[in-house]
Formats: sequence, C-alpha cells, structure tokens
Amino acid sequence: MAKRTNTLIVTTVEIAGFFESKNLRTHGMQMGGKHVFDFGEIKMTQAIHGLSYEIEGKLTKFGLAAGIIFHSDGKVIYHAGDTALFSDMKLIGQYRPLDVAFLTIGDNFTMGPEDAALAANYLKAKKVVPIHYNTFPLIEQNPIAFCTSLREKQGEYLKVGEWLEI
Amino acid sequence: MAKRTNTLIVTTVEIAGFFESKNLRTHGMQMGGKHVFDFGEIKMTQAIHGLSYEIEGKLTKFGLAAGIIFHSDGKVIYHAGDTALFSDMKLIGQYRPLDVAFLTIGDNFTMGPEDAALAANYLKAKKVVPIHYNTFPLIEQNPIAFCTSLREKQGEYLKVGEWLEI
Amino acid sequence: MAKRTNTLIVTTVEIAGFFESKNLRTHGMQMGGKHVFDFGEIKMTQAIHGLSYEIEGKLTKFGLAAGIIFHSDGKVIYHAGDTALFSDMKLIGQYRPLDVAFLTIGDNFTMGPEDAALAANYLKAKKVVPIHYNTFPLIEQNPIAFCTSLREKQGEYLKVGEWLEI
Repeated sequence: MAKRTNTLIVTTVEIAGFFESKNLRTHGMQMGGKHVFDFGEIKMTQAIHGLSYEIEGKLTKFGLAAGIIFHSDGKVIYHAGDTALFSDMKLIGQYRPLDVAFLTIGDNFTMGPEDAALAANYLKAKKVVPIHYNTFPLIEQNPIAFCTSLREKQGEYLKVGEWLEI
Repeated sequence: MAKRTNTLIVTTVEIAGFFESKNLRTHGMQMGGKHVFDFGEIKMTQAIHGLSYEIEGKLTKFGLAAGIIFHSDGKVIYHAGDTALFSDMKLIGQYRPLDVAFLTIGDNFTMGPEDAALAANYLKAKKVVPIHYNTFPLIEQNPIAFCTSLREKQGEYLKVGEWLEI
Repeated sequence: MAKRTNTLIVTTVEIAGFFESKNLRTHGMQMGGKHVFDFGEIKMTQAIHGLSYEIEGKLTKFGLAAGIIFHSDGKVIYHAGDTALFSDMKLIGQYRPLDVAFLTIGDNFTMGPEDAALAANYLKAKKVVPIHYNTFPLIEQNPIAFCTSLREKQGEYLKVGEWLEI
C-alpha cells in the first residue's frame, strides 16, 4: 500500500531499514526521539513488549517495540502500542496534554483493563480508546466495562468502522 | 522433561514459539499481560536484561527477558528473573500483596545486594529470597548479610535443597 | 585498537561474546550489575534504544543497549548511552553523586534538549555534557542553548578536541 501511494513510513530505525530494502520511503527514529514533519510532530515512546520476527525463515532485526505521540493541527494523540503498563506514562502526559490515548486492554500479551485504567490515570488523556481485544478468545474483554471504570466521559468505545472526532 | 510429563510451558511469545516447534505444550505471553490458568494466575512482568541466544549456531528469536507474578491458593509469588532494579517494582507490590519475592543478588549480570535491598523495599514482600549468586566467583555474595540488611524477618536464606513454606 | 593494546573491553554479555570470538579481552555485564575492576567500579545501566546489528550480512546477537556509571579516583561519571529519557535516572543520581553526566541531545534517535534537561534535573550531576548531536542534519541542535537551559554552571559544552577537568 505504501508503495502505491509513496507514503512515508515513520518507524524504528530497524524496521525502517527493512522497508528501505524494499524501496519504500522511510524515516527511522528511536524511543525518546522527536521529529517535526510537514504533517506534524512525532515523538517515539518506549513500549515494553518483545519484538522479533522471522521473514521467509530468516530472523530479521526489528529492535524494540515502540509507541508514538502524534501532534498535528493542535491535537495530540498517544498510541501506546502493545505494551505493559509503566509509570513513565506519567512523563508522556506531562510532555503534551493528550487529546486521545489508545490503550490496549486485551491482557495476556499487553495491559489488561486494570492496568489500562491506571495508564489512563497516569496519562490524563481527555479521551481513552481501548484497543487490542476481542480479536480471539485469549484477549476477550468488555470495552464498555473498561470505559465505565475510567473518569467520567474519558472512555470512548469505538465499534469497527466508527470514527472519533477530536 | 516437559515432553515426558506433557507440562504446559508458560513463557514469552518468542520462547513459546521455539518450544512449540519442538512439539511441546506452551502458552505465550508478553510483559504486562495476565492470564488465569486452572493452576493459578500468572502475570508477566518487565525484566531489564539482554536476551538473545544462538541455538545450533543460529541466532534464535527470544524477545525480551521477563519476570512473573504467580498467584495460586491465595498466595502470591514474584520471581524477578535476571534484571536490573527498576522503580516500577513498586507497581508490582501494589498489584498484589506479595508473600514471597525471589530477587537476584549476584551483581555484575543483575542487581547486587544493595539494589536488591531497594527492590525488597519497593515490593513490600513478606519474605525475600536471594537468588542467582555464588555459582561462580564473579557473582560471589553473602546471602546472610543481604538478609540482615532487610526489614526484620523479611530475608529468607535458602540452602540448596531447602524449602520455604508460605 | 583493543587488539594492539590488549585493552579489556567492558560491555554487555552479548557484545563481549562477539569480541571474545575475535580473541579480544572482555568482561561481560548486564544492566543493573556492578563490578569492581583494578581501574575503578563500573555499573551498567538501562538504556532505552534498539540494538541489533548485521555483521557481514548476518544478524548478530547484541542484546540491549546500555549506559554506564564509572567510578574511579573518587570521581563518578555517568554516560547515558543512546537512550530515551526515563525517570529511573533518579535512581542513578541517588546511587552515586555524579560529577559528570554525558547526555544525548540530538533528538529523533535519542533524547532531545528538553528531555535531556529533565534528565539533568533527575540526575543532579554537577556537570552535564551534551553529546550525540550535529553530526548530521537530522540531529542538529544548539548545545549552548541547551547548557543555558540547565541549572547555573551545570552545562558544559565541549568543542571537538576539548577536555573537561573534574
């Protein structure tokens, strides 16, 4: 898809290297680094999650998992990526007032609802959208119960295909 | 051993993938994820430690190091794994009141006695058992001095073959 | 260079393994571990940064990125390595009063000036030397502005070839 549209792929240095080898346009970053693009500012954040892939039977260097803080048109979005809860999420909320945070609630592979509720509290995001759940039985969760567990009107449960206006 | 007894191996997604390829029963998890099994609840925790192995001369994808919180029969055990001290151990102590914490004191490759004493304080575990020391000169430590440095009756030094009843 | 001078290379277990295979003298460590050498004490610290290399087209196991705290002749130096800001830098400042901290300010791949200023504050180092900037356009920064943003007389901007006496 990126090839057809000539989209710039912003990702970790390691994954950027992989896509570059496929002749795609990339911008490599690392955790804690920030860069201002013409479409907005991106800061790459830590995510605590294993990341290593085999591609065509060959182990491929993919570095560490990451989240992002995306700042554009006066709005700030944090996508935590697949990650465990970590208390430095407080630093992310202090770095920019967040309009929306996307937080995993699936458990087993990432934060579950209880840890995501702590994360929402650390981040102080205006809106929190639960992600990464109910795609298979092991990560079955109730997103409505999760949203109810948050600060009033903070949780925003999106059905497949729904939009969130910020 | 797991093959003979058909034991379920609970580990990171990457290591689970390795054992699956050997036809063993596995359950893959990632840091921050929790799952309830018939024998108890396991939550996988962050560990700050390098992890990459060559097996038969081939680099094998093993993701990140991890610790676990194991909850069964009303008792909670934390095994930190090989790790540096990190202050989010406070979150582990807040997640469940810990009956026992196993903490490395070997230094050089992991926390030494001073950092493990800080960890014990962060975790507020009832009992702390020092591990990962004295197997070779580089990690020679005095487990009795370590236990003495902790809160009264918190440290529990186990000799090889000894049991701890909780 | 290490070969010619028979220098001991102190590094992560994984990188030590690589240099050992080249017949160099190494001492492997891991994050959180400390060891006393005849030239001083080294403690290896966490660094949040991807680390994986291909050498002669073959992915090589290099574990995790790291920083170090070096203690010798009554002076303590912290080199953060390439890393994101993390609040456990406070633990590093509490572990030893730091005479100098070397902190990246390049942004994009590491902490930028704002995060490095927070780091300087967490670490409470007497002197802070900005590093890892201006080697190419993507990490262009103003080291003088960075030093000015710190506590009075804390920032120490070194030109290429300059020395810092501590």
